Amino acid sequence: MLMQTHQARLKALREELKRRDLDGFIIPISDEHMSEYVGEYAQRLNWLTGFGGSAGFAAVTLNHAAIFVDGRYTVQVRDQVDESLFEYRSIPGDRLGDWLVEVCEAGAKIAYDPWLHTWSWVEGLEKIVEAGRITMVPAGSNPIDAVWADQPEPSDAQAVVHAEDLAGRPSADKRAAVADWLTDQGLDAVVIPALDSIAWLLNIRGSDVAHTPVALSYVIAHSDGHAELFIAPGKVTPELVQHLGNAVTVRPRAEFAPALAGELAGKRVSVDPDFGVVGIAQALRAGGAKFTFKQDPTILAKAVKNPAEVQGHRDAQARDGAAVSRFLRWLEVTAPAGEIDELTAAAKLEGFRREHGDLRDTSFDTISAAAGHAALPHYKVDEESNIPIPPGSIYLVDSGGQYPAGTTDITRTVWIDTPAGSEPTAEMKDRFTRVLKGHIQIDRAVFPEGTCGGQIDILARQYLWEAGVDYAHGTGHGVGSFLGVHEGPQRIAKPGGGQAGTAQELLAGMILSNEPGYYKPGAFGIRIENLVLTVEREIDGAEGHSLGFDCLTFVPIDRRLIDRDLLTDSEIAWLDAYHAKVRAIVAPQLSSDDLAWLEAQTAAL
Amino acid sequence: MLMQTHQARLKALREELKRRDLDGFIIPISDEHMSEYVGEYAQRLNWLTGFGGSAGFAAVTLNHAAIFVDGRYTVQVRDQVDESLFEYRSIPGDRLGDWLVEVCEAGAKIAYDPWLHTWSWVEGLEKIVEAGRITMVPAGSNPIDAVWADQPEPSDAQAVVHAEDLAGRPSADKRAAVADWLTDQGLDAVVIPALDSIAWLLNIRGSDVAHTPVALSYVIAHSDGHAELFIAPGKVTPELVQHLGNAVTVRPRAEFAPALAGELAGKRVSVDPDFGVVGIAQALRAGGAKFTFKQDPTILAKAVKNPAEVQGHRDAQARDGAAVSRFLRWLEVTAPAGEIDELTAAAKLEGFRREHGDLRDTSFDTISAAAGHAALPHYKVDEESNIPIPPGSIYLVDSGGQYPAGTTDITRTVWIDTPAGSEPTAEMKDRFTRVLKGHIQIDRAVFPEGTCGGQIDILARQYLWEAGVDYAHGTGHGVGSFLGVHEGPQRIAKPGGGQAGTAQELLAGMILSNEPGYYKPGAFGIRIENLVLTVEREIDGAEGHSLGFDCLTFVPIDRRLIDRDLLTDSEIAWLDAYHAKVRAIVAPQLSSDDLAWLEAQTAAL
Repeated sequence: MLMQTHQARLKALREELKRRDLDGFIIPISDEHMSEYVGEYAQRLNWLTGFGGSAGFAAVTLNHAAIFVDGRYTVQVRDQVDESLFEYRSIPGDRLGDWLVEVCEAGAKIAYDPWLHTWSWVEGLEKIVEAGRITMVPAGSNPIDAVWADQPEPSDAQAVVHAEDLAGRPSADKRAAVADWLTDQGLDAVVIPALDSIAWLLNIRGSDVAHTPVALSYVIAHSDGHAELFIAPGKVTPELVQHLGNAVTVRPRAEFAPALAGELAGKRVSVDPDFGVVGIAQALRAGGAKFTFKQDPTILAKAVKNPAEVQGHRDAQARDGAAVSRFLRWLEVTAPAGEIDELTAAAKLEGFRREHGDLRDTSFDTISAAAGHAALPHYKVDEESNIPIPPGSIYLVDSGGQYPAGTTDITRTVWIDTPAGSEPTAEMKDRFTRVLKGHIQIDRAVFPEGTCGGQIDILARQYLWEAGVDYAHGTGHGVGSFLGVHEGPQRIAKPGGGQAGTAQELLAGMILSNEPGYYKPGAFGIRIENLVLTVEREIDGAEGHSLGFDCLTFVPIDRRLIDRDLLTDSEIAWLDAYHAKVRAIVAPQLSSDDLAWLEAQTAAL
Repeated sequence: MLMQTHQARLKALREELKRRDLDGFIIPISDEHMSEYVGEYAQRLNWLTGFGGSAGFAAVTLNHAAIFVDGRYTVQVRDQVDESLFEYRSIPGDRLGDWLVEVCEAGAKIAYDPWLHTWSWVEGLEKIVEAGRITMVPAGSNPIDAVWADQPEPSDAQAVVHAEDLAGRPSADKRAAVADWLTDQGLDAVVIPALDSIAWLLNIRGSDVAHTPVALSYVIAHSDGHAELFIAPGKVTPELVQHLGNAVTVRPRAEFAPALAGELAGKRVSVDPDFGVVGIAQALRAGGAKFTFKQDPTILAKAVKNPAEVQGHRDAQARDGAAVSRFLRWLEVTAPAGEIDELTAAAKLEGFRREHGDLRDTSFDTISAAAGHAALPHYKVDEESNIPIPPGSIYLVDSGGQYPAGTTDITRTVWIDTPAGSEPTAEMKDRFTRVLKGHIQIDRAVFPEGTCGGQIDILARQYLWEAGVDYAHGTGHGVGSFLGVHEGPQRIAKPGGGQAGTAQELLAGMILSNEPGYYKPGAFGIRIENLVLTVEREIDGAEGHSLGFDCLTFVPIDRRLIDRDLLTDSEIAWLDAYHAKVRAIVAPQLSSDDLAWLEAQTAAL
């Protein structure tokens, strides 16, 4: 008999806590690998509360419960979560620790799943709750799992080989580099829980989580170049074993924790503080390993794309650009009748991507946002939120594809005409053009070696700041090669505070998004996003090495939203040159009406 | 009998160390207040080594000695310091701790003066030298002082009252704010060793160190608004006592350390980690105070100028602008004959400043730099370095005045013509114009509340970066009100690393320098520096509060060095508007030839 109501689920959880003599439990959206996207089995917050967003957590005590979400989900949480069961709390303003101190009595024992939280998260929380004499207790097993009768099993999809012509570098070579790093650091081994790091290191891929082609597994890499892959035996094929060779031992995933506590005893071991959960640290400590937190050595290496990966990105982007262009033409022709809605538009776009071949997945949930929905930068369309796209409005679509050759991510903001013809408002054009100017400044930035993303962020914002407006998100994130659409360590954003990665030096070979925007709540939203590749720039008379960006994304930018008077001559020249390149790359893939449309869109402004 | 040679001084120091059973000693350029400029009595590094730079330190062991200086002083240290006595070491690459480990035997005891180093400095050093089993030992008294027979006494200049019409706010009001802060923080008292903080808090000034009008003293401020000023009795006048009133107890400076260890026993006390030396922390600990490191609560308050201080700055800048303008005209007329040198130019400039009244001191050593000297951003002219200013070259002058109404700091870079007439090279014009473009972008930047200096730094550098060049210093520092010409906490510079202050939010009322530059080693140097005031900006349709800068410095910018083709129309408009304002402010103070010169210099480009 399944529990159908969230009330019944909450009650069952509390009974489980009582059985275990616990006073509360924390429920994040997280898996054992600190993945951005998690498998169905790890959607515990959704099961317990009904919340469908991608970030947030709940805390449940015997008498109180609260759900903590950020500003993106203020509205959504009210739609999806019953306030009589869960109080709404807003992060980062409201802190979990303060809430626990408020609702718990001194001496309370609040449990957390040690496989779903990092060490620093627990430490930070402990510092706050000690004021209320509350103890944080690692749960032996997850209490939700004990009461979630129909919890899905983790995916049993097979892990597959990522071809070396796409990876550009043999796994043995990558493992040798990790071994050198271990030797330099005076370490014997590194524990790698991050799924994209494992995929990159071993040149394997999987399909265990949405949008990111990775396989649920762990790696322990040793200073002699040998590695152990801990993975469910059902995922392992003879091809995979052959690919991995003798220097990679394939072991059942269940042996991972025992190996940490047993085989690594006495060894000097590192784990990344952002991915190493408490469970890993506890197991290492229990076994007597000398462990330290250090950044996963594959992260920077993975971020710097090799020539094969760069070529793969260009190939994937060319196909993706043709698909998105065809979608935009279809939208322009069809939408003025008023019969397209956000979901059908997203489905149509995915259809074009599939037609152009080799699409394995979308790289994230498509943001298909009409009118006021576009003002929510992270809007996620579903059956309930879906609205028709109104003629005479702005439509924003942020989407991407996972192709074996590369991962794409593009946003276009377009004017949806009326049958009789209509014009965007002067305000819309003003804001769109300021966003475009910022986009252009990032695209053509030139900067010395050693520059970090936090330094160049203002280039994208300055024209919006002149008008007294801004956007409340970063300007650019790293992108993987048939891996995470959000990949560290680099990032273009306001420096400091919670913006990890803004102090990372930008290196030739790094791919970043360039996505300034503007959002007018309840009215409209704008974002223009291309991916760019960091490249070396030769400059006559230069006194050091300089870097800049090569654009990778080629899809027309909607000229109906541009106020030409706000652009300088050199910005117009940039746009014309960009459109000429779009035409050169995309036109050969189009025909008839699509081609005519592209030619009109990419004519000089 | 005085020791005339550095060899004899070094020998005497080593004998003193042996007497004390010490294996070495560290000699910084520092005083008990971590002042930027220190009194003659504290010039121990200069006495010991002959080094005349403003930053660096030496380490002496019984058998080895080294002097550590940064890239600015690579040449100077070789001129001034005998390598047979002191090895040259380059910071930050060479670390003191590593050197000690290299030259000392295990068990060595290396002393430092606990009144001349911060706690974090000692902690950092201890972490490094523990690898060599070296112990850092606070010296009971400074060993240099024991052997420096003719060491000057600390200045006995009187402390004076800073008039309230210039200060803009009564000391009692400032002390009440500090008391509120102490209460908020759950503290009983704050120890303030920073001389400019004391001067600001009590509305007093002094003349105990060069260039900064402060009095050697300490303050302990209490949560009831009462404060104790520890100061040499000879500095105290009846006027001062009357000004300070009943709520400020004036006590002999010698009672300071005993008061920390005695009267503050058991109290909750804070001290600023950047100014609280080890001696203060030790005394507090010895007495049993509960002390914590927290930023001095006057620092941010002092940085945000009140209307009276802003008006004072404007008045001081107007006078200063007239003096510098007259100097530039004199230079233009006189220098082509080739008979002006760097020292006479600097003296002439100070003379013009004195003529325009109320100058109390220069705000730092004037950088009067001809030809290749201008490529050294921190060049200090003296009798030995002094050269004639060559006709047909670039001359850079960075200088400032201390006026009771405000502190100034300006750099101008000008072309020194030949009698027959000559032109700067295309390269000089290109670089000058790129520096000017960056200067303009900072001057007219508009940014939202919450923006920090690290974010806007790139605005000044971007045009140099386009040409593959840069400058190796910050873009802007805070400036005091008849106080330090370098004042925290704000700073415009590349974010991260050693750039403290770049994460400080810029607030309306803060004064900053705007000083991009370019330096071609051995050839020429360029810097254009004005001071700017952070102000609120009203913008139609703004969605938040915006800030920008009002320029405070008004002196012509040399048009002979400008490549007009590199400027946009709006940059030319900025320059014309700036020059029109220079004319409006400075012209009324000039007459005859000076006035005619100013009018020509400030005509539209």
